[in-house]
Amino acid sequence: MMVNRFTYWSLLLLLLTCIGSMGPAWAADPLPSWNDGKAKQAIVSFVTRTTGEGSPDFVPPEQRIATFDNDGTLWAEKPIYTQLLYAIDKVKEMAPRHPEWKQKEPFTSIIEGDTKKALEGGKPALMQLIAATHTGISGEEFHDSVRQWLSTARHPETNKPYTEMIYQPMLELLNYLRANGYKTFIVSGGGIDFLRAFAESTYGIPPEQVVGSSLKAWYEVRDGKPVIVKLPEVNLIDDKAGKPVGIYQHIGRRPVFASGNSDGDFEMLQWTTAGSGPRFGLLLHHTDDQREWAYDRESHVGRLDKALKAASKEGWTVVDMHDDWKVIFPWGDR
Amino acid sequence: MMVNRFTYWSLLLLLLTCIGSMGPAWAADPLPSWNDGKAKQAIVSFVTRTTGEGSPDFVPPEQRIATFDNDGTLWAEKPIYTQLLYAIDKVKEMAPRHPEWKQKEPFTSIIEGDTKKALEGGKPALMQLIAATHTGISGEEFHDSVRQWLSTARHPETNKPYTEMIYQPMLELLNYLRANGYKTFIVSGGGIDFLRAFAESTYGIPPEQVVGSSLKAWYEVRDGKPVIVKLPEVNLIDDKAGKPVGIYQHIGRRPVFASGNSDGDFEMLQWTTAGSGPRFGLLLHHTDDQREWAYDRESHVGRLDKALKAASKEGWTVVDMHDDWKVIFPWGDR
Repeated sequence: MMVNRFTYWSLLLLLLTCIGSMGPAWAADPLPSWNDGKAKQAIVSFVTRTTGEGSPDFVPPEQRIATFDNDGTLWAEKPIYTQLLYAIDKVKEMAPRHPEWKQKEPFTSIIEGDTKKALEGGKPALMQLIAATHTGISGEEFHDSVRQWLSTARHPETNKPYTEMIYQPMLELLNYLRANGYKTFIVSGGGIDFLRAFAESTYGIPPEQVVGSSLKAWYEVRDGKPVIVKLPEVNLIDDKAGKPVGIYQHIGRRPVFASGNSDGDFEMLQWTTAGSGPRFGLLLHHTDDQREWAYDRESHVGRLDKALKAASKEGWTVVDMHDDWKVIFPWGDR
Repeated sequence: MMVNRFTYWSLLLLLLTCIGSMGPAWAADPLPSWNDGKAKQAIVSFVTRTTGEGSPDFVPPEQRIATFDNDGTLWAEKPIYTQLLYAIDKVKEMAPRHPEWKQKEPFTSIIEGDTKKALEGGKPALMQLIAATHTGISGEEFHDSVRQWLSTARHPETNKPYTEMIYQPMLELLNYLRANGYKTFIVSGGGIDFLRAFAESTYGIPPEQVVGSSLKAWYEVRDGKPVIVKLPEVNLIDDKAGKPVGIYQHIGRRPVFASGNSDGDFEMLQWTTAGSGPRFGLLLHHTDDQREWAYDRESHVGRLDKALKAASKEGWTVVDMHDDWKVIFPWGDR
């Protein structure tokens, strides 16, 4: 049989196109922003062991659930939680329509620019801020409001949008896990609706894979248009012991991999790694005061004490931000 | 350049292998159990229009959310809800350890085999049954108990396991949607934990894509072992106006496709099809007294009146079980 050059090149071209469409089978280092060290080795070893066909630690794809805290784990939480900054900005914006706030804490202090004093009211003050800025409106209105705010607000120290105050090494970890059949979830003490407004575009995590604190909601037809209305009543506080509960309610399955950075993540890591078979608990320790912030047990935001003390006994992998990460943010360091 | 036959055939073989691995691009009829009629045509047209690149009705993959009611939509709900039969069987099994039930309705009637009388107590009676059989135990214990029960319980009329009382045409619809990039969810008035015990093996729907009515839960360490404990307090009734709320809380995004069979699904279909862009509302009408059961507005279980009247105005596709389905169950007809 005669084969001409055209046929040969056509087949070769088709084959190459075809191979190209199969994805990077011989991928380069999946975690290039991680220094070679114990943490990176532990992660790569775990993913390899749990996904290799025939491995004694093989985890079936449907059980590959990985959960990530958000504040301090996927993005920075200093100087204070981003969602609180949103609430503060909204209060200032809404103040002209609320003359009564001039004599009502915590609003008075917020309007006067004294955030510290406003937050001295503790949890009740916080709930008042949330109720004023997060409820009474529809889910879609809130979503649009958060997206609008995120597009203009800037971090007070770096002047970067908050959606760029995310950790490059953690983005790589999310992608690495997903490329190996893991389904990645956010499990945050922050508000579920606030997170859903940016999680998909920022982390590639769709709304249905976001678990967070939530308020009750109601459905009604307003002026002929069906809407979900956010109510000023707590549904779930997805923090501490609330995290395994949130996971149970939303995911319905114990994670294989869990990642956090504070005592608020203790129970999530405990619940995850107490399961049978291979489990991974990752605890991010903020140790780099030059490139990010250094804090642990003395910190009000993102306090890390109990979980750090338990890490060794529980077999959790502590990631030392200073030693383990080559870069912090996608755009470089602080 | 010379090309020998070996090279030619090697390339051709590789190319064919490669094409083979790309999946069935020229699939056969994806809905073989559906008669050719308006309903089937509407479904195929919708899926084609929303997934074809360049189509004016194209829906990006991440927005392809399809929700399905369970009782009466994915599996049979006659003579009564399967979950209720589970609760009844559990009460009988637990009765020897609860002598006080001999003089306490609705338990007395259940033990005496008079289900009808037991249910005359309405919602409070139902909640007592649920509290007695669904709470105080851990999530994992409940899961195992339901699976154990499903493996032995049989439908009173067909003598089939309940997990075989499922609709073959709906299984095909689930697969067809998934093959076209839709993410399929259950949104049921039934208990979320009950559903999660069989949804994955029966429908290919993983726990994290199941939304249902739920009880509150708590996390604690019992004898050194972390557990989720189910509490006798309602968290969400995922029925009627509760369905859009459940969707909002769990999925966080309005579905593009919703499917139900009773007035309990009215708000889910309304919320879904009120969204902008292409939307599909499917209403299954039980019209076949020979092969399944025929019921609508007079039925206590699965009452369909308001939603059927609204279907035409709302543009919902009514599936007539008698006319539209070639077979009902995977094993044939009742």
